Amino acid sequence: MKTARYYGKEDIRVEEVEEPQLRAGTVKIAPAFNGICGSDLHLFHDGPMPPAPTSDAAHPLSGETLPVVLGHEFSGVVEEIGEGVEGLKVGDSVVVEPLMVDGTCPACKAGKYNLCEQMGFIGISGLGGGLSEHIVVEKRWVHPVGDIPLDQAAMIEPLAVALHAVKHAGATEGQLAVVGGAGPIGLLVAAVLRAKGVKTIVSEVSAARRAKADSSGVADAVVDPSTEDLGSVVAEHSGGAGADLAFDAAGVGVVVHQLLEVLGAGGRLEVVAIHTKPVEINIAAELTFGDHVLGSSIGYANDHPEAIELVRSGKVNLAPFITSKIIVDDLVEQGFERLITNKDNEVKILVSMR
Amino acid sequence: MKTARYYGKEDIRVEEVEEPQLRAGTVKIAPAFNGICGSDLHLFHDGPMPPAPTSDAAHPLSGETLPVVLGHEFSGVVEEIGEGVEGLKVGDSVVVEPLMVDGTCPACKAGKYNLCEQMGFIGISGLGGGLSEHIVVEKRWVHPVGDIPLDQAAMIEPLAVALHAVKHAGATEGQLAVVGGAGPIGLLVAAVLRAKGVKTIVSEVSAARRAKADSSGVADAVVDPSTEDLGSVVAEHSGGAGADLAFDAAGVGVVVHQLLEVLGAGGRLEVVAIHTKPVEINIAAELTFGDHVLGSSIGYANDHPEAIELVRSGKVNLAPFITSKIIVDDLVEQGFERLITNKDNEVKILVSMR
Repeated sequence: MKTARYYGKEDIRVEEVEEPQLRAGTVKIAPAFNGICGSDLHLFHDGPMPPAPTSDAAHPLSGETLPVVLGHEFSGVVEEIGEGVEGLKVGDSVVVEPLMVDGTCPACKAGKYNLCEQMGFIGISGLGGGLSEHIVVEKRWVHPVGDIPLDQAAMIEPLAVALHAVKHAGATEGQLAVVGGAGPIGLLVAAVLRAKGVKTIVSEVSAARRAKADSSGVADAVVDPSTEDLGSVVAEHSGGAGADLAFDAAGVGVVVHQLLEVLGAGGRLEVVAIHTKPVEINIAAELTFGDHVLGSSIGYANDHPEAIELVRSGKVNLAPFITSKIIVDDLVEQGFERLITNKDNEVKILVSMR
Repeated sequence: MKTARYYGKEDIRVEEVEEPQLRAGTVKIAPAFNGICGSDLHLFHDGPMPPAPTSDAAHPLSGETLPVVLGHEFSGVVEEIGEGVEGLKVGDSVVVEPLMVDGTCPACKAGKYNLCEQMGFIGISGLGGGLSEHIVVEKRWVHPVGDIPLDQAAMIEPLAVALHAVKHAGATEGQLAVVGGAGPIGLLVAAVLRAKGVKTIVSEVSAARRAKADSSGVADAVVDPSTEDLGSVVAEHSGGAGADLAFDAAGVGVVVHQLLEVLGAGGRLEVVAIHTKPVEINIAAELTFGDHVLGSSIGYANDHPEAIELVRSGKVNLAPFITSKIIVDDLVEQGFERLITNKDNEVKILVSMR
């Protein structure tokens, strides 16, 4: 069968491999659409880093070294059902929660499997991926999506990341939130907040991204913090009280400080981005004197069913975030390269096998 | 009447002033015991800083410039009751929540008056203080303490700080917490945690302070992080899962990093100290990859009744924390100086007027 396999830095090969075999407790799926994620870009441009294996060191849970099949944000259709699997049937539209966890570490035992000590990802750490004609996945990770179109369903995975962060922050109806950064995750965080009845201000320096936040209907207000005073806009929308919540979906220090500044009494900033540099926090002024909280979270655990329901119920509309569809043969030129050269206009590029 | 008034850096004078007059809605109290607090020490050694006024600039809520009467952690006995005051009678033992707030800012309107934009303290910003023979206080700030001895009652104020932090952190019965620093606030945080059924490990480099944490019965375990491996002790007490909560009562960067390191999945570090320097946080490694939360809070709001009940019910025993009692004439030599030269052996020095 046809796959796209990752061999290392700037080395992805579309090639034939043997088709995986159904086992008891698993489901065989024909992937439909794959979203390209920031971590795919990092792997391609910077070379393998955990949770990807290397050519020498296998991932402890998959036992695989490079090459590995790519694709961890994907939807598909059930082709075969393994022995003992219930609640799914051939032809069902599904998404895969692309995880491998050891199940025995303290985090797993506490149900927080997103923090598993050995955590791996299907489509990064081995066990196949969405960029292939077939994949066999343990039933536990397969979620039916009902009548959600398969292209939108490919975005359930990043939506689950956004939902996990919004829940971690304790968002409740009637609050006011500021989202810093309107890349894919920022837009999805804003979408989840709106779905939960939270008034949402999106702060973003890129005009193209602001336009998308506006046209996709996820923001009550859109602000350019480089030319407008974010504090004044927040004050207008809060009667001077400041924001209840803020989300850093940019991952840069200046945004952290900007968002802490506009929090009201007892407000919380949630970081939903991977910071690559340390940030110098003035704990007294930025946290203590406002009873403020700085939280952060990674991934998702038990969030897929609610993410799917947000889309099925129409509370979140993922269609505006699909900006391109390509086939796997164009993955590098039309996918990875374009997400760099045209990054402000692209939100999610979906890849199919044919 | 006799008072101790603050004139500025290293200038406190015990002197006679006119006795304040009872007004409608107020209570006249004869102060019994005053605790010396870290902020008193700062004022004495470093000179006036907000919320203290200066000789030129009055505090906006008290309208007073220097000198001001000192003493904000105090107990006393009701001497006179103003018109319209209910629920108190002459002879009642009370404590004063030593605040002045504007009542109209967004924080005040939200009930979070500890974050009042103009916040002042009785005993720092004007309106008299506990280091005087009489004080007149608005009824709102006067809390009866029943049969709690007046010396212990003088520690209700810092206990309310500790309680506010423990509540802000969301502590619940059955959790495991690490308290970094066993000064007065660290010990009181540990005492509140124990009272709430939280297993508590105290981490402290000073042998004298560790001995106090041990003898006062507020810790399930006491650790010297300079010679013992805090992580191993936490692992032992948590079956390898890490701490649910940690409290930084030291206010130094190294303790922040040490405590973030021993948090388990989804754990929270609460800062209950004033950091004077920024701290470089590696957000990805220290927060994101553990679903961790860093919170902080200041002061108290609506916490005094619960703090009093913790002591009345016997769940918190404040007696072990009273290490010296002095009279106001010895305030500088036996109070402020000793808290510097003998700081590891002293927890709370109480001052009375005679």
